[in-house]
Amino acid sequence: MAETKKTTIVLFSGDYDKAMAAYIIANGAAAYDHEVTIFHTFWGLNALRKDEPIQTKKGFMEKMFGKMMPRGADKMGLSKMNFAGMGPKMIKGVMKKHNAMPLPDLIEMAQEQGVKLVACTMTMDLLGLQQEELLDGLDYAGVAAYLADAEEGNVNLFI
Amino acid sequence: MAETKKTTIVLFSGDYDKAMAAYIIANGAAAYDHEVTIFHTFWGLNALRKDEPIQTKKGFMEKMFGKMMPRGADKMGLSKMNFAGMGPKMIKGVMKKHNAMPLPDLIEMAQEQGVKLVACTMTMDLLGLQQEELLDGLDYAGVAAYLADAEEGNVNLFI
Amino acid sequence: MAETKKTTIVLFSGDYDKAMAAYIIANGAAAYDHEVTIFHTFWGLNALRKDEPIQTKKGFMEKMFGKMMPRGADKMGLSKMNFAGMGPKMIKGVMKKHNAMPLPDLIEMAQEQGVKLVACTMTMDLLGLQQEELLDGLDYAGVAAYLADAEEGNVNLFI
Repeated sequence: MAETKKTTIVLFSGDYDKAMAAYIIANGAAAYDHEVTIFHTFWGLNALRKDEPIQTKKGFMEKMFGKMMPRGADKMGLSKMNFAGMGPKMIKGVMKKHNAMPLPDLIEMAQEQGVKLVACTMTMDLLGLQQEELLDGLDYAGVAAYLADAEEGNVNLFI
Repeated sequence: MAETKKTTIVLFSGDYDKAMAAYIIANGAAAYDHEVTIFHTFWGLNALRKDEPIQTKKGFMEKMFGKMMPRGADKMGLSKMNFAGMGPKMIKGVMKKHNAMPLPDLIEMAQEQGVKLVACTMTMDLLGLQQEELLDGLDYAGVAAYLADAEEGNVNLFI
Repeated sequence: MAETKKTTIVLFSGDYDKAMAAYIIANGAAAYDHEVTIFHTFWGLNALRKDEPIQTKKGFMEKMFGKMMPRGADKMGLSKMNFAGMGPKMIKGVMKKHNAMPLPDLIEMAQEQGVKLVACTMTMDLLGLQQEELLDGLDYAGVAAYLADAEEGNVNLFI
């Protein structure tokens, strides 16, 4: 019997286009029966935020970060040609035209395919993000759990 | 007999310096007889554009993208200290002084060494890039082909 | 006896947050007895600069680069929300509050744990950086040495 292949992605970036690339690779790998983990850290956590404001108790700095960072996948900017938000509109326009899945749908698909979505607890602390602000069905872990997955991985990417 | 080692690089970035790093690693790996694939997606496709304008039939958005994106490797900007184009001039100046190969030469060398240069067809569609606008001798494929190479790879990088 | 696992990281980025991610992964892997190498190239070399100015003989371009690039880990900016230097202050503020290690301490810890810190000699030449300007205890090597480590690596990342 063939061993299950493993794919891990560290999603560090908070850019719409980079997160799209991460989720397209993850969904592809899951379709080929890989065990796939996306470990969201730093700005990559923003892809997992719910889009509505959530009441939480936070310190001043944590509130500031919470306000300045995009609330969820659909609000993220582009790594190139962002043009103060025009770029994402253009990209989403051509994506619709070509029937490409927008990022929130890619994330939902990943969850349905059993891709393990992990939120890095250490950077959640730093950026003041709390579990209630993030999507349901996530795992919460640190770098040790990531390394345990990655050292058995066939494809390990940092995006 | 030793098995052939495989190296795959996803070139997502459209920055001159990052593309240089990708091609230096690729050429190095090819020199050590690795089978090397560079999978160009999103802005990384710009490294493969021909530098002259090509007549094509395109929609409005696709024309806009075509005009705003750099036409070929030599026109790409830096990820840091770009200074509205001054940065690339400075880097190219010191590269010449130190006899380092400029990016277009690194790409040519990769082709001569048999590095497989792949253009991601899905993002070509999104950005409205057509085969006639890209260099000769490329492969055209999607994420499935990338994963098939990467899962047997010893070194898999996302740049 | 189990074979020693190997982890390699190419640190290309000169951003404080990305370098933090690189060093947190490296320190984690070293704690799990991996052999770890961080190969610093392009802007990633700035993490290894001493923070005081060092007298060296340089050409004009090399002096310019030397002045414009951050002198050491503590002076690096963020990849997102840098806000002309406010961002790093905010991040360092919350890091202190949460007892997270600042980057210079993460680098020292890596050296103590035996992580091999390599400076890429080719890009040192390009950016005009000399050995006296960099931290003590580094290795100096090129892409061939990196590939020799990476092709035996279990986890190979480009950051």
